[in-house]
Amino acid sequence: MKIIVDGMGGDNAPIEIVKGCINAIKRFDIDIIIVGHEEIIKKELESYTYDKSKIEILHAGEIITNFDDPALAIRRKKDSSMVVGLKALKEGLGDGFLSAGNTGALLAGGLFIIKRINGIERAALTSVYPTSKGISLIVDAGANVDSKPEYLEQFGIMGSVYMEHILDRKNPKVGLVSIGDEKGKGNQLVKESYLLLENAPINFIGNIEARDLPLGEIDVIVADGFVGNVILKLTEGVASFLLAELKTIFTTNIFSKISALLITEGLGNLKKKTDYRQYGGAPLLGTQKPIVKAHGSSDALAIENGIRQLINFIEKDVIKIIENKIQIKD
Amino acid sequence: MKIIVDGMGGDNAPIEIVKGCINAIKRFDIDIIIVGHEEIIKKELESYTYDKSKIEILHAGEIITNFDDPALAIRRKKDSSMVVGLKALKEGLGDGFLSAGNTGALLAGGLFIIKRINGIERAALTSVYPTSKGISLIVDAGANVDSKPEYLEQFGIMGSVYMEHILDRKNPKVGLVSIGDEKGKGNQLVKESYLLLENAPINFIGNIEARDLPLGEIDVIVADGFVGNVILKLTEGVASFLLAELKTIFTTNIFSKISALLITEGLGNLKKKTDYRQYGGAPLLGTQKPIVKAHGSSDALAIENGIRQLINFIEKDVIKIIENKIQIKD
Repeated sequence: MKIIVDGMGGDNAPIEIVKGCINAIKRFDIDIIIVGHEEIIKKELESYTYDKSKIEILHAGEIITNFDDPALAIRRKKDSSMVVGLKALKEGLGDGFLSAGNTGALLAGGLFIIKRINGIERAALTSVYPTSKGISLIVDAGANVDSKPEYLEQFGIMGSVYMEHILDRKNPKVGLVSIGDEKGKGNQLVKESYLLLENAPINFIGNIEARDLPLGEIDVIVADGFVGNVILKLTEGVASFLLAELKTIFTTNIFSKISALLITEGLGNLKKKTDYRQYGGAPLLGTQKPIVKAHGSSDALAIENGIRQLINFIEKDVIKIIENKIQIKD
Repeated sequence: MKIIVDGMGGDNAPIEIVKGCINAIKRFDIDIIIVGHEEIIKKELESYTYDKSKIEILHAGEIITNFDDPALAIRRKKDSSMVVGLKALKEGLGDGFLSAGNTGALLAGGLFIIKRINGIERAALTSVYPTSKGISLIVDAGANVDSKPEYLEQFGIMGSVYMEHILDRKNPKVGLVSIGDEKGKGNQLVKESYLLLENAPINFIGNIEARDLPLGEIDVIVADGFVGNVILKLTEGVASFLLAELKTIFTTNIFSKISALLITEGLGNLKKKTDYRQYGGAPLLGTQKPIVKAHGSSDALAIENGIRQLINFIEKDVIKIIENKIQIKD
């Protein structure tokens, strides 16, 4: 198996990306193609001792940054690490692609270069959502901000397949974000999507209110991309707000400082529980080949875990399973 | 000035409602009509010493509960405290109406019985949103789940008037919830609403990402009712989740228990900061007469503060100001 990695994408590229690749070839039985500026990647690799037959470099002179317009960048920056990497994937030089770069560009590139699975209306961005029980998967996390009921139905099917085969949830529970638990609650899109989802080949448990998402009672959170993105961002915002307030409380006086010391371990565990790095990345669902997006601030550990996720994605043949589920449906 | 209060609405009716009314007539120069079952309200009032000329009872034999379908309940439960109270408001027996009952029914009643302000397309539910700087106002918090750009424009105008005249924010900042700060980011509804809001007679500061809402940089949060409701519920959910995790940490062992004791005061302040009761309630915006919704779990203090808010609503003639702003716009 060969994994293609975007060596220049993300806040900590190329240092942490290359380090993550080195760790990955030691941990897993794979080869890696790192796409990026040859001299820069080569120089990074020189810091390590490793089996040189397992990593090759594919040169790409440009970089797509977070300031680039996604669709425009994919069309114009032909020599960027992302475009070169996706083309290599298309041509079969590798079995899957990992990038910590511009999310919108990766989505656009996935659609323009790799194309959608036959029968899939829209590809979706996913995101892991930390809950008190572990994680859920949000589909869509922001790719399709004006969705139709048919898209949401497919988000539910694709998310369910991914959760079952990659994250080993038996018969994953799929919920539809709405403003009331009962069938019939919600806006027009949600009401119509409900009718499709309840007849889809998934374990659809109905509407779920946003208030209940952190409880982790469902495995796949289905939402329009606008709502899914609001959920992700707001969760981050509220958590940061509360932790900042808490920090203020803990630094008020000597007693509160002592109290902070006394619960250091507990707070550390909470931080770990909500740490995106251990999940490695979020798959793009709906493209013809496996693509995983690593968090923009990924370090070596996140990259290594992203590669692990991609390996599962490939080994379990998730794309084939999605194809079949969609055909059964039609 | 005479305030009409729904004596039977909310989790703590009638005990806390009546107590709140008693406190309100002692604190403010107003008369109150309590609507509810005459014998029950009368019996409650007997526990207090107060100026009997200031409170009268308007009998209503039925109650609309949270299990009732809002629109149906307003049409069928003609003798409910909510319907009787709203009719009294319409007939001019009082100057404003406060209820802690079924939110959807209050909205439906406001529309069917009191009617919309001329030129207003849709009435909106509002909700106070606690932030690190105080509070913001969400418009719409759940009344209109399939909005048009024109509604969102009016939500911005109405919210701005309310914030300026009732909550004393000079030139309140109005932000539109989207999935990117820049103009042009968002779904179709947001993009079109942006164009209207930037030309409205308000201090529109552009899009705001959900992540930034808890920072309190803006005063009025404009959103479609579906998104506004998701924001409210998710904020509650994430806060509860984190506080529960924290509680677990604090009860792990003797050291953590000591640490909890050491920061009791700080945690109490945080709790107070996010306590809905001190804000009293949320106005319905867009109806021809002042209506304020108190939280379903309101106690006497919340009711008293809700009445204070209603007094301001009436005194500042907010409805007239909204009418004028809307006419200027047309």
